[in-house]
Amino acid sequence: MTLLFALYMAGLVASAMTGALAAGRRSMDWVGVLMLASVTALGGGSMRDVLLGHYPLSWVAEPWLLGLTSGAALVTVLVARYLHRLRITFLVLDAIGLVVTTLIGCDVAIQMDQPVSIVVLAGMITGCVGGVLRDVLCNQIPLLFSSELYASVSVLVGILYVSGLELGLPHDVVTLTGLTAGLALRLLAVRYGWGMPKFVYTKDWF
Amino acid sequence: MTLLFALYMAGLVASAMTGALAAGRRSMDWVGVLMLASVTALGGGSMRDVLLGHYPLSWVAEPWLLGLTSGAALVTVLVARYLHRLRITFLVLDAIGLVVTTLIGCDVAIQMDQPVSIVVLAGMITGCVGGVLRDVLCNQIPLLFSSELYASVSVLVGILYVSGLELGLPHDVVTLTGLTAGLALRLLAVRYGWGMPKFVYTKDWF
Amino acid sequence: MTLLFALYMAGLVASAMTGALAAGRRSMDWVGVLMLASVTALGGGSMRDVLLGHYPLSWVAEPWLLGLTSGAALVTVLVARYLHRLRITFLVLDAIGLVVTTLIGCDVAIQMDQPVSIVVLAGMITGCVGGVLRDVLCNQIPLLFSSELYASVSVLVGILYVSGLELGLPHDVVTLTGLTAGLALRLLAVRYGWGMPKFVYTKDWF
Repeated sequence: MTLLFALYMAGLVASAMTGALAAGRRSMDWVGVLMLASVTALGGGSMRDVLLGHYPLSWVAEPWLLGLTSGAALVTVLVARYLHRLRITFLVLDAIGLVVTTLIGCDVAIQMDQPVSIVVLAGMITGCVGGVLRDVLCNQIPLLFSSELYASVSVLVGILYVSGLELGLPHDVVTLTGLTAGLALRLLAVRYGWGMPKFVYTKDWF
Repeated sequence: MTLLFALYMAGLVASAMTGALAAGRRSMDWVGVLMLASVTALGGGSMRDVLLGHYPLSWVAEPWLLGLTSGAALVTVLVARYLHRLRITFLVLDAIGLVVTTLIGCDVAIQMDQPVSIVVLAGMITGCVGGVLRDVLCNQIPLLFSSELYASVSVLVGILYVSGLELGLPHDVVTLTGLTAGLALRLLAVRYGWGMPKFVYTKDWF
Repeated sequence: MTLLFALYMAGLVASAMTGALAAGRRSMDWVGVLMLASVTALGGGSMRDVLLGHYPLSWVAEPWLLGLTSGAALVTVLVARYLHRLRITFLVLDAIGLVVTTLIGCDVAIQMDQPVSIVVLAGMITGCVGGVLRDVLCNQIPLLFSSELYASVSVLVGILYVSGLELGLPHDVVTLTGLTAGLALRLLAVRYGWGMPKFVYTKDWF
């Protein structure tokens, strides 16, 4: 599917750019920028593959992916001062990245004949763990754990996708449904600040 | 062994609850609570399996384990305000979890015919790394590195277990000895604040 | 090659000592010191092996490596107060460690018939990731991302090594060239404070 592939590339680039900007906010050098961008973009899929024992990892089999994420990082450094004008474009690309990588993660687990719950989880890990690694390397609590709907979108997309395939619907229809629903929900969540309820606990007894 | 299995479940639940409470202390949302609880409970075994190349990971083979840790996390959110009254129960469950997961980790390495030192280390990784991952994701220095006897208890249990098996003692006797000794040592360490000596270094020359 | 092996040991020891000193700066106990030293010294190679699916890991196949790193950690605790007088020795050993582990990491990937880009990356991961893990466990942003030439030295050594072998030069000549060039560049970078340009970004719009 050429469209899905193009969206995947766009998602990787957007994800790498969030990593590069996070590096810039901590005044890292170019090495840090390249590494953080690559880890953010490819870390989720790598974590999925390591946890499932699915070798070789995508970027080991296709090293040009590292070229893509490094290129995205360098472009980010060059155009950083204008990037905030592209806020909407950027958020849309990031949301596309979340949804598409989730679908790709689900597919990997499906090809390994994993049970449904692991398929959905593999999708979520692929979509979300890159950002978690980025935040850990930037020495902050992962945004994922307290921000707007993000992991939830990923889980919902995974459930829609798996359910559709189980029901025997055509692959293209299911993919498109997952994409549209996920994209809509994520963008609405950003727009209106929707989030999951928080658990606030203040005691310190153990 | 049904008893060991029941203790393992109790340990996983206690471990997931420490993860959920840590998430609550940082005001994470429900997604963060579920993830942190699952990583805390299952992260040690996952790290062991990834380092030893022992696939599939426990929760991939048995996804209901994720249901258990997620359930424990949700219950924690619901009953959090009463939990501190159960402090003793909680500490005992956590100590049981440490010791039982250590024994299970040793068993995995034994079945892989690893040398004695790797068996003991596999036990320690299984027992302790979940808490390390929890603390890293909460952006703090792992408690393990400076608190009461914890990793040391795990190592001691592993050594007792391996030595007993090498000496040809019955499996049940060795397991029970490891359990009792580990549990006693951990609870005494908590009660009396026993810890390992600290290494304090203040120079900053490299 | 006996010389390379001796340099590898020296590098592991130096690397373990940086981990132990970092632990001491955070007043960790002996358990933390041993763990942090071992993770710093062996974490890079472990990360490479896990990402490439190259099992068993070095310290699983040869557990005495853990004895070496633990021993280096204990010696560090004992002689810590005199260590700063050995600053030059220490920096040289650390630089040797960086270069030699890079070469060893490249060799592992070459034996797996990986493409050139993955070989260079495997070298860099082996040389640099141990320090990243050390810093993450110490709850600080990895020094690697903003300090003097370090990862860049590793990449340069990898490129020199791979190019030399591709050109059909004798293995010893290529190894020695990589060693000398890497060592010289790293020590000059420390001496004169050479670093990569930094990317400073202050906006906070996404």
